[in-house]
Amino acid sequence: MREGATRKDIEELVSLLHEVGAEAHVSRGEYRTVIGVIGDREKVMQMPFEAYPAVEKVIPIMKPYKLVSREFQDEPTAIPVGDAEIGGGGFTIIAGPCSVENEAQVVEAARAAKAAGAGLFRGGAFKPRTSPYSFQGLGEEGLEILARARSETGLPIVTEVLDVRDIELVSRYADVLQVGARNMQNFLMLRELGFQDKPILLKRGMSATIEEWLMAAEYILKEGNNRVILCERGIRTFETATRNTLDISAIPMVKGLSHLPVIVDPSHATGVRELVPPLCRAALAAGADGVMVEMHPHPREALCDGSQSLTIDDFREMMVELKKLAAFLGRR
Amino acid sequence: MREGATRKDIEELVSLLHEVGAEAHVSRGEYRTVIGVIGDREKVMQMPFEAYPAVEKVIPIMKPYKLVSREFQDEPTAIPVGDAEIGGGGFTIIAGPCSVENEAQVVEAARAAKAAGAGLFRGGAFKPRTSPYSFQGLGEEGLEILARARSETGLPIVTEVLDVRDIELVSRYADVLQVGARNMQNFLMLRELGFQDKPILLKRGMSATIEEWLMAAEYILKEGNNRVILCERGIRTFETATRNTLDISAIPMVKGLSHLPVIVDPSHATGVRELVPPLCRAALAAGADGVMVEMHPHPREALCDGSQSLTIDDFREMMVELKKLAAFLGRR
Amino acid sequence: MREGATRKDIEELVSLLHEVGAEAHVSRGEYRTVIGVIGDREKVMQMPFEAYPAVEKVIPIMKPYKLVSREFQDEPTAIPVGDAEIGGGGFTIIAGPCSVENEAQVVEAARAAKAAGAGLFRGGAFKPRTSPYSFQGLGEEGLEILARARSETGLPIVTEVLDVRDIELVSRYADVLQVGARNMQNFLMLRELGFQDKPILLKRGMSATIEEWLMAAEYILKEGNNRVILCERGIRTFETATRNTLDISAIPMVKGLSHLPVIVDPSHATGVRELVPPLCRAALAAGADGVMVEMHPHPREALCDGSQSLTIDDFREMMVELKKLAAFLGRR
Amino acid sequence: MREGATRKDIEELVSLLHEVGAEAHVSRGEYRTVIGVIGDREKVMQMPFEAYPAVEKVIPIMKPYKLVSREFQDEPTAIPVGDAEIGGGGFTIIAGPCSVENEAQVVEAARAAKAAGAGLFRGGAFKPRTSPYSFQGLGEEGLEILARARSETGLPIVTEVLDVRDIELVSRYADVLQVGARNMQNFLMLRELGFQDKPILLKRGMSATIEEWLMAAEYILKEGNNRVILCERGIRTFETATRNTLDISAIPMVKGLSHLPVIVDPSHATGVRELVPPLCRAALAAGADGVMVEMHPHPREALCDGSQSLTIDDFREMMVELKKLAAFLGRR
Repeated sequence: MREGATRKDIEELVSLLHEVGAEAHVSRGEYRTVIGVIGDREKVMQMPFEAYPAVEKVIPIMKPYKLVSREFQDEPTAIPVGDAEIGGGGFTIIAGPCSVENEAQVVEAARAAKAAGAGLFRGGAFKPRTSPYSFQGLGEEGLEILARARSETGLPIVTEVLDVRDIELVSRYADVLQVGARNMQNFLMLRELGFQDKPILLKRGMSATIEEWLMAAEYILKEGNNRVILCERGIRTFETATRNTLDISAIPMVKGLSHLPVIVDPSHATGVRELVPPLCRAALAAGADGVMVEMHPHPREALCDGSQSLTIDDFREMMVELKKLAAFLGRR
Repeated sequence: MREGATRKDIEELVSLLHEVGAEAHVSRGEYRTVIGVIGDREKVMQMPFEAYPAVEKVIPIMKPYKLVSREFQDEPTAIPVGDAEIGGGGFTIIAGPCSVENEAQVVEAARAAKAAGAGLFRGGAFKPRTSPYSFQGLGEEGLEILARARSETGLPIVTEVLDVRDIELVSRYADVLQVGARNMQNFLMLRELGFQDKPILLKRGMSATIEEWLMAAEYILKEGNNRVILCERGIRTFETATRNTLDISAIPMVKGLSHLPVIVDPSHATGVRELVPPLCRAALAAGADGVMVEMHPHPREALCDGSQSLTIDDFREMMVELKKLAAFLGRR
Repeated sequence: MREGATRKDIEELVSLLHEVGAEAHVSRGEYRTVIGVIGDREKVMQMPFEAYPAVEKVIPIMKPYKLVSREFQDEPTAIPVGDAEIGGGGFTIIAGPCSVENEAQVVEAARAAKAAGAGLFRGGAFKPRTSPYSFQGLGEEGLEILARARSETGLPIVTEVLDVRDIELVSRYADVLQVGARNMQNFLMLRELGFQDKPILLKRGMSATIEEWLMAAEYILKEGNNRVILCERGIRTFETATRNTLDISAIPMVKGLSHLPVIVDPSHATGVRELVPPLCRAALAAGADGVMVEMHPHPREALCDGSQSLTIDDFREMMVELKKLAAFLGRR
Repeated sequence: MREGATRKDIEELVSLLHEVGAEAHVSRGEYRTVIGVIGDREKVMQMPFEAYPAVEKVIPIMKPYKLVSREFQDEPTAIPVGDAEIGGGGFTIIAGPCSVENEAQVVEAARAAKAAGAGLFRGGAFKPRTSPYSFQGLGEEGLEILARARSETGLPIVTEVLDVRDIELVSRYADVLQVGARNMQNFLMLRELGFQDKPILLKRGMSATIEEWLMAAEYILKEGNNRVILCERGIRTFETATRNTLDISAIPMVKGLSHLPVIVDPSHATGVRELVPPLCRAALAAGADGVMVEMHPHPREALCDGSQSLTIDDFREMMVELKKLAAFLGRR
């Protein structure tokens, strides 16, 4: 309460709290009175305390999420996809080009991914682009190409759903539905993905706090789909040397708060090819359940993000190292 | 080019540039060579220069937007809505509650808004909420209530489109379609709004640069709808005393770069009721075309954002001041 | 407390709190226990609660500053300097070049500042520069030039103390000692300035929260110098269109929290000359006690920050407008 | 140049550039003219181009640092300190309490550090504290205690210089002089440290870009001291779950740009004890030359930062793991 709050102000709030079934513990200090509230989270949080002039500040103590939390489920969630499993103690590599450009390129990339030991294949058929004048993806044709890459290699497919109206279409082709950073708080899409029978790869929003990210996952779990893979892909900061700032601390932090698997996307986090291998190693060492990296057979012909894509050779070399390191750390 | 780039590396790039019809001016320094490129923006920007190892950095000089720029149209865009006009030299006030809760409350707010001199009325029927357990809005019922507020007062209605599938529904009721901060880069929604015959109020994304915001507007103009009102609503920074940080410099900056009108939302920018009146004055003094403020007849009963809503009395008092200040500054 | 905290854990903390004379109010919920603590701020805040594994989080409720707060002194602090007064209801303009380059230039600038109605004159003799290869200021020679500008015009001088060892030297020449953004948390310098008999202009650090800024002022007041002028000069964010982001909300926010005067520096906040006049107006309208602007008789010859300096003509024109606006708003 | 720049405007700038011995390459496009400039960095960068109204933007292409760059010295700098060496291919651990509190505690911590294999010992005698009411360190008494810890264990001492006037005092006791985040741009202190005959541990500023950090190191090298150890300690972002955001990408990025060794401080970066071991592993895997961690024999008695200090047991356990991992990665 503000300095100067009267006994009447305090009583008014306390009786309001009692009305919604909450307990109110009043602590009176020399300058300030603090009211501690214990009660049903949703009911209490919807009360407009701050509209009362005598209230100075409302500070929530409880975490606002439930189903995604370790308190709700201590056992880590493992999500099987094809022959891979994300979150079961292994370290899963998802690789592929930023966007699907043509069949030859995609099949070549998928074969190289498979040969080097990747567990899933990624590629964008629908691309979110800052400029309306940039290449926006091949759409359904891209999805068909991805499906062919799967039949050639057996690798399950991860691809982005850009529009809520395309969920069914993308579901017909993909094994994992990706929610991009820009859609992390597209709540209606999250809800619909909660009804799908596919795992969801949920990228962290560019300026989303860890709490908001977990709340976005909560939207999906709330509707019954608990196969959510969290993906840290860099947050926006003042630093301009890298495209975004990879928040590596988020890995052990989220592993402590939630039972959901967490992977890292160092390609989008940095936008710099040379940084991808050291950051994949760092992600593994920090306890991530996997990484998602951009790899392109011919980066110079890429229609997007050529500067951050590994070549097939770079990727192969990195995979050799990562496998050894994973084995050393007792991970598959 | 990187230090150590060879004559061959340079020639390769130059001939690549010639292939897409661009001019390349090579400047050789003691340590570095710089290639200046002049050519068709879209063609040149899609070239994967950074996939060439000899290239150190690509720095775009041209602005990436066209239709929204002052170079394309020097004359400011004025957007008439009902009896109001946004961007024509006046200072327009949009007021109303955060969310539509019931008819009595909404009509009371609309009457107060009208009486105090607001030009448009706002209210959310679909609410984006961080938590799946929070009130999500009344949906179509909320739109009907807003329509009734309009028939009672004559004030045009601004309300948010949260889902691309609701554009038609919302268009049937609203006079201005609002794109929320979380949807600023929902590119498919932007495109569809480009085909609508209604003005669009485009909020700046929480972590969007001014350039990205203008590019989002470009998506709408590209499809033929040039009635876009930009709305600065605070950006996300490290400061926690206010919910976001109102970027007041963006007002004169955007007015210089673009012909589109720009308004300010100090309620969402700060989350603090007491800051709304001084920031409305500041927005006016900085050259904004208007403000959008939250006002609620009974903030203590608000289902969202009670802490940032003005009471009717506060609003009325603020309007008296703003009118005088606007008149003094030669604005309507 | 964490979920699973035992009765023993709680008792241990409570008795620890009693030892330092604090009251502890224990609230037990279904999942969590919250201990509300009322006691001497300094004693309680120094206790290492978070080193106890049963403690989940410590949330301070009290503000950590005292002497700078409105609770300590409700009356606004007015600081007379020469014929000017900062914080007494007027709107004070401090103007001058970024750095002192030579006597002719400085005297010309000071005369123009005086003629247009500025209350104080600014100029840097010691310059903090990111690069060791940039011009670092004229040092004591610069201070002498500033003193001559004062004798020519009568305007009091504001200049930066860059090094704690120079406090006495600078005090011999200057009327107001400026602490730059990079020294806002140079605590030993702050303490020494607390012993000086001159007003201190304390710039907000590039990434300082409002609370940290007020704590920096508290260091100065604690030693007995309560003539502190706070100066908002932009904070560092992801936006690159302006050099920093002017936090205009900080003005009414700080005026509410503290009795100290607050001014705005739009030149450093934005780095863009064209934005200075609209932001000066916005600062005035938001309730600032003044502005500090860069002005240079010949910006093309400036050794630093030419791009953000107003010419004498620009400045004069802006002053005419500001005076009218201040008068309209009932400010001097 | 701005659209509308005349031939005369362009010629004026070109002849200005010729005057300082620079070459100017003019590229004329349909809408814009670009002038490419090749010349002496310092001379060109000091020209006030942006004071010319016809100039739209100045974009530096060359990096502003020299002595710290890989181009200047390709060979990594290895810095021997006592029996340790930082930057020579090994992985060095610096451990110790946040602040020096008393001799018993410090000697116990130093023995534990030594026993577990740390290479250097750290502890603060002068503490920068946000609040003037917090414990500010023991000063010279603290330095004496640190010296005793060194004679007991043989571990070289790292401690912070808080005030430029204390450089000589601290140099008498310490083996490595630490510059804290708040002093990273205390340019006069950096310069003086450039004359010292001790290695400098330079922490990255809370909101310093990588470029600014390297420029700060350049200040030290410029005066002749090239024994600078860079220390990444987290940057300030909007995320509040951790105290700062550890910028792990900065490690491989800086290793590519500079020959100087880079270490990581995960304790200050996160403020969360549990995150320290995984982030130490991540730092090692990302290529850092070492880590600096807080460790306290009795965190509950710590006078600062108890919540982020490892206990001796935690530290010992982490060291066992790190040694194995370093050996596996071919590091000492």
